[in-house]
Amino acid sequence: MKPVTTGIIGLGTVGCGTVNVLHRNVDEISRRAGRRIVVGAAAVRDRNRARDCPMQGIQITTDPVDIVTDPKIDIVVELMGGEEPARQLILQAIANGKHVITANKALIALHGNEIFRAAHNQGVTVAFEAAVGGGIPIIKVLREGLAANRINWLAGIINGTTNFILTDMRENGNEFAEGLRLAQQLGYAEADPGFDIDGIDAAHKLTILASIAFGIPLNFQQTYVEGIRDITCNDVLYAEELGYRIKHLGVARRTDQGVELRVHPCLLPASRLMASVNGVMNAIVVEGDAVGHTLHYGVGAGAEATASAVVADLVDVVRALTSDPGNRVPHLAFQADAIKNLPIVPMSEVECAFYLRLQVTDQSGVLADVTRILGDENISIKSIIQKSKTAGSATVPIIILTYPTRERSMDRALDLLQALRTISGSIMRIRVEVLR
Amino acid sequence: MKPVTTGIIGLGTVGCGTVNVLHRNVDEISRRAGRRIVVGAAAVRDRNRARDCPMQGIQITTDPVDIVTDPKIDIVVELMGGEEPARQLILQAIANGKHVITANKALIALHGNEIFRAAHNQGVTVAFEAAVGGGIPIIKVLREGLAANRINWLAGIINGTTNFILTDMRENGNEFAEGLRLAQQLGYAEADPGFDIDGIDAAHKLTILASIAFGIPLNFQQTYVEGIRDITCNDVLYAEELGYRIKHLGVARRTDQGVELRVHPCLLPASRLMASVNGVMNAIVVEGDAVGHTLHYGVGAGAEATASAVVADLVDVVRALTSDPGNRVPHLAFQADAIKNLPIVPMSEVECAFYLRLQVTDQSGVLADVTRILGDENISIKSIIQKSKTAGSATVPIIILTYPTRERSMDRALDLLQALRTISGSIMRIRVEVLR
Repeated sequence: MKPVTTGIIGLGTVGCGTVNVLHRNVDEISRRAGRRIVVGAAAVRDRNRARDCPMQGIQITTDPVDIVTDPKIDIVVELMGGEEPARQLILQAIANGKHVITANKALIALHGNEIFRAAHNQGVTVAFEAAVGGGIPIIKVLREGLAANRINWLAGIINGTTNFILTDMRENGNEFAEGLRLAQQLGYAEADPGFDIDGIDAAHKLTILASIAFGIPLNFQQTYVEGIRDITCNDVLYAEELGYRIKHLGVARRTDQGVELRVHPCLLPASRLMASVNGVMNAIVVEGDAVGHTLHYGVGAGAEATASAVVADLVDVVRALTSDPGNRVPHLAFQADAIKNLPIVPMSEVECAFYLRLQVTDQSGVLADVTRILGDENISIKSIIQKSKTAGSATVPIIILTYPTRERSMDRALDLLQALRTISGSIMRIRVEVLR
Repeated sequence: MKPVTTGIIGLGTVGCGTVNVLHRNVDEISRRAGRRIVVGAAAVRDRNRARDCPMQGIQITTDPVDIVTDPKIDIVVELMGGEEPARQLILQAIANGKHVITANKALIALHGNEIFRAAHNQGVTVAFEAAVGGGIPIIKVLREGLAANRINWLAGIINGTTNFILTDMRENGNEFAEGLRLAQQLGYAEADPGFDIDGIDAAHKLTILASIAFGIPLNFQQTYVEGIRDITCNDVLYAEELGYRIKHLGVARRTDQGVELRVHPCLLPASRLMASVNGVMNAIVVEGDAVGHTLHYGVGAGAEATASAVVADLVDVVRALTSDPGNRVPHLAFQADAIKNLPIVPMSEVECAFYLRLQVTDQSGVLADVTRILGDENISIKSIIQKSKTAGSATVPIIILTYPTRERSMDRALDLLQALRTISGSIMRIRVEVLR
């Protein structure tokens, strides 16, 4: 059969990785797909930059519009990232009847509803396996592998940078800032790491996973986001003593009130497999009513892991080239006309158990004040640990684990606690997830 | 769109589970597939047996031939198990132009080459996600999700019964026989548990996974198989002391000499995620050249987990009903004409590190004999631990960990060691897998 020609927009890390994988594994991939996949053209910013991938046969342009308009190109692979002009280019490619593959999670999370509508109307596919979990085929697993299930919840370690830093804090006792510096040195974090450590990147990914799991539109704006900047080594240590590990999770859960969409640090029971997912690795647990729990683990970023997902999408799209659009796997797992809005539960209504760390003046009556305030909000305490005083400090840390309570009750209690004169500094609050 | 009608052969545990899942999740599944999937008929052995699933609308027959010949039935779901008459029925369904879904791992492992050839010639699909790893969509992951990769190896805990027993031995200190009894009481093991505990079931599954991973024909007869009957609590304990856990693994590995296909107990480093896969859970690690390691974990058996895979296959097949057969996902991941025979490495040529447990007479010179025999076979010793003598015993256990060595060298050394008069009882030998 005639080879399929792709055009790549962006030959950075992932773009080069994709060219390398297609080149190195041409035999394996052709034996699977039944035809060759060739890179016919690529758009780059700097034509003269040296690139770490074979460039023979690839027509280079500096104008990405060339790629989305070239009639020789069957499939456009968008690997430039960012919202614009990626959005415009993808819409243009769709309008020209081209299938699109993208690794751009921000774009899908923010503009996916518009992009998929356009693709649906044109009868083309926009594939985005590489947008979540690097090489872990989690989009395929959710969309096809678990298609029999009513999915009740999913939770993922879906940002390698934050997981690296939290692992470093636990294993090496580094504080957050030091762990971040190390992540930057090793190339795991950007110079501007905000997207990662403040949870935005994870929120993009969670938005996509939730939509596919529940058959709802993409809801990035309604996703609650919290990063890991405030976690201290002491929190990691105290959590450990209580039998937990601190992980940064994206959680999407279906409840009677609607769908919870939230990204924040969590205490996880150490016995959970997820608690042992360390370093830059990613993992997603999905709970479906028929299958029970499944967990999918792998490298969450990097040139070749992401290329693995891009090329898997390429093979899928190649296979679907001759199929009628109505029978292809829908973009968001559910047929376009079967996507249903479900209410997104406001964070104040979410129920969680909590870990609290308070720095209190070592005097009698403090604990009574604390437990009274929590009690007034009907927050049940599971355990309280008062750490011993360290030399030279006038205060001692108190660690409290609560039973599940509504977020707004905890917010009110925290306001009152924070106002106590016997409590110094900010109270640390971390949610507890048992993944059940 | 018009509903798709399936006929199920066998309404046992998995059959009923499938009917229940299709019934309960009819909305979710239809929203995904774009049309309803109905069970039009089912073949059962006993028409009068009470069944734990809704039977309305299902035409019951006691002759499975009715199902494979019924022109109203688009897709045949074979859930009767066993080799015959399942093989004949499936071939007949294929000849009648019907797509087939099966959970029958023995059938696929033993007769898959014949069945897939027939299906390929007829332009129909035989789907078998449920044959391996229960609800874990590992077939889809390997065949599609990791299609970009040259897969180097995979290793799986793919039999829940053996994993349950080994977990019980470690957690509760039960010996094998007791763990097996418990597994039988809980319904995790058959009255005749040989298929599970002797590794046959795992070998069926490994055969299928290896074929899909490497693009080779199904090679059950050449798969090396060893069960867990001889593992003792002491082995579990000694392994633990050395930082390992004992798991029953299926391992398929590509080497310069060919493909290794082997099922046997292993010592795994306790730090590996696989070492924490406990109870009846299954997990498979796959190493691809682009993606690195991915791990997929879930419930490996049971009515609804298996039904989850059966119904996912149904949705896939429904989507492919209108596609041209040449562009469907090939049965064994690689196009039928691109399946290549690779030599299967004889077990004697496989290289492994070993754990040895010897019961020796407590007298000087024994260790010298043991190390000399191993040294003569160029087997390097990583560690030797001589346990202290227990009261009333004339012998002491010696635990040896070796560096990787060829299996036939170890066989020769073991013959010589076993002949030593200072060694009593059988020497225990367990392979060590580091999953790299």
